[in-house]
Amino acid sequence: MKPIATATYRQRQKDVIRQMEVRGLAGLVLFDTLSQRYLAGAYFIPTERPIALVLTQEGQAALFVPYLEEEHARQVEAVDRVHSYPEYPGQRHPMQYLADLLDDLGLMGKAIGADRPGYGGFGYRGPALSEVAEGSTIVPAGDIVETMRMVKSPEEVELIRESARWGNLAHRLLQKYSGPGASEVDVSMRASTEATLEMFRSLGPDFIPKGSTGAHAGFRGQIGPNSALPHAVTVNAVMKPGDTLVTGASADIWGYHSELERTMFVPPVSREQRTFFQHMLALQEIAFNAIKPGKPCSAVDEACNAYIEKHGLQKYWRHHTGHNIGLNYHEPPFLDVGDHTILEEGMLFTVEPGLYVPGLGGFRHSDTVLVVRGGIEFITDYPRDLQSLLVGS
Amino acid sequence: MKPIATATYRQRQKDVIRQMEVRGLAGLVLFDTLSQRYLAGAYFIPTERPIALVLTQEGQAALFVPYLEEEHARQVEAVDRVHSYPEYPGQRHPMQYLADLLDDLGLMGKAIGADRPGYGGFGYRGPALSEVAEGSTIVPAGDIVETMRMVKSPEEVELIRESARWGNLAHRLLQKYSGPGASEVDVSMRASTEATLEMFRSLGPDFIPKGSTGAHAGFRGQIGPNSALPHAVTVNAVMKPGDTLVTGASADIWGYHSELERTMFVPPVSREQRTFFQHMLALQEIAFNAIKPGKPCSAVDEACNAYIEKHGLQKYWRHHTGHNIGLNYHEPPFLDVGDHTILEEGMLFTVEPGLYVPGLGGFRHSDTVLVVRGGIEFITDYPRDLQSLLVGS
Repeated sequence: MKPIATATYRQRQKDVIRQMEVRGLAGLVLFDTLSQRYLAGAYFIPTERPIALVLTQEGQAALFVPYLEEEHARQVEAVDRVHSYPEYPGQRHPMQYLADLLDDLGLMGKAIGADRPGYGGFGYRGPALSEVAEGSTIVPAGDIVETMRMVKSPEEVELIRESARWGNLAHRLLQKYSGPGASEVDVSMRASTEATLEMFRSLGPDFIPKGSTGAHAGFRGQIGPNSALPHAVTVNAVMKPGDTLVTGASADIWGYHSELERTMFVPPVSREQRTFFQHMLALQEIAFNAIKPGKPCSAVDEACNAYIEKHGLQKYWRHHTGHNIGLNYHEPPFLDVGDHTILEEGMLFTVEPGLYVPGLGGFRHSDTVLVVRGGIEFITDYPRDLQSLLVGS
Repeated sequence: MKPIATATYRQRQKDVIRQMEVRGLAGLVLFDTLSQRYLAGAYFIPTERPIALVLTQEGQAALFVPYLEEEHARQVEAVDRVHSYPEYPGQRHPMQYLADLLDDLGLMGKAIGADRPGYGGFGYRGPALSEVAEGSTIVPAGDIVETMRMVKSPEEVELIRESARWGNLAHRLLQKYSGPGASEVDVSMRASTEATLEMFRSLGPDFIPKGSTGAHAGFRGQIGPNSALPHAVTVNAVMKPGDTLVTGASADIWGYHSELERTMFVPPVSREQRTFFQHMLALQEIAFNAIKPGKPCSAVDEACNAYIEKHGLQKYWRHHTGHNIGLNYHEPPFLDVGDHTILEEGMLFTVEPGLYVPGLGGFRHSDTVLVVRGGIEFITDYPRDLQSLLVGS
């Protein structure tokens, strides 16, 4: 397993520049942290201080950072120059310094693409790019990188596979430590810590995590009736016999993620729980089978919807079937009735149709799959059947 | 220790509505996750799906959420209604449903404030509020909540004090486990896990953490020469004799944070390390003494700058003296030469002037202090002298 190579970042920049050419853009300003990581391997902790990656038609890549990140930015191999400003808010606004850089790069007065109108975030105040880049035309162009990031390269898939391996270990431990009387927080921290330490030990000193938080597995509050909230938050619950548990596990490998989620039970399991569990399994099978290169994303969600309607499950159906995953947990395209993006080989999706029954619990497995010729390949690998997902017995 | 009361959220809403009146705003739309938490105790995991809190001049508070958060939103006590939409992107765009809500609240065609032009985030695409709220005037008004959040109430300060207690424990453990041969990740995970489990045990079942990640302490890569990067990222370093270590510790108490950072050493400590450490201590003393209600924030940073210039330390000085802290780690105002906000009782600041010496290391303590009559009160409480900050001896 290797980090993304500098040559790959340079190739990605070239691919972006080709798109800029098509649109007649002399430059491109990217404020999105993960786009900076994607195109240059640059990773900075976001704060009130603007940071941008600027690409030019001539092939220059420049990092714009606050002075406190200057040396850090100079370690980034896939950029040609670093331009820093003293501080935010400072005596002169950082965006004025960004204008200096654009001028220096010969972009002033030309058409410049940008992924956002300006820098953002709570507590930050500043002018839009169009207000400081006098005479230039600022063109929304965030979709260039967004579209490129949809299809993963073999290098990226390798990192996401590695993520799934460690998410898998964290989940094994989570299942092992769960049972009647166990506390959500205890089990989750124990599993996550052990898996992370094992991961760092095993990957050895060459694994420079660059902000990685390691491996983790947990419940985020989805225990017992509270599991019926698809995006519950930690409640520090204690597990009881009869509880439905909805889990989540992943690991951060140089910024890349996978997603593994399972519905587990503290026995005994009621007939009602079994029924919804089987419906959920059936829905996931339908989704797995519906993913084929050449079909639209919406077709997958529609296939699940047809099952939902046939079985009168509409009131338990709360969200779309899945989402692309990579540097972000949730990336476009979405397996959603309203997303007509065509499925392509190399796209990665979580497949997680869910049923949420107030008072009873939530029923959701999530697997990460790669779109390949003719269908899918599993990135996550963990039992899905009910018998394998009982805890504390 | 108690969570923020529903009555307090309602009072905050009233305070915002008074500001809306002054500006002639019939309504206010807030997309910022933490503003939703601040004004209604509403906490949702942000994704591609827009979520907003809408306040009206008549005193109505409405939550706008995707269907998957509907029941979760109905548990929020300090709102009057919940309006949900099926999904993003869905067959009809979520922003169209937001327009329905605005219409329903009688806001259409009137002046509506907003903290952002529209919903944002990577991979999300959608119209600005001004494009869906036909006939309405959308007025930037994010500063109303931003300004309110600058001064903390006694209730908030209590939660931040509690955060400091557990950050303190995590830091004690971090220091205890550090030493020659110790790995950054091991020490940090061990300290954070133990402190978190102790925190949850001690706060008991009434502490519903609502997304809290517990207590943590770590190094974020600031070990040895790498500590000279003010915002380094984890490198999985192993500690060696002579290393400078820069730490960070905090705990999440119902969304509120404190900040404790220390410069520690693996002995022996060189003369050069001692010199920079003493300069850093002197700078922190200067900042503590410069914080007085009625003075501008800039005066504190200027006082540090005067010391820096006097001692020729300019090249080691990389960032401003501190920032406000609360629901966000970094909140305005900033202790920065360019921030002329007047210091008020009830504001909370990190005080963290730092010196960064390439090849040698970073030197930074951070303490959280409350602005009180005549000066400051310490929220964090941890030794600052060199002798107390040696590890592994």
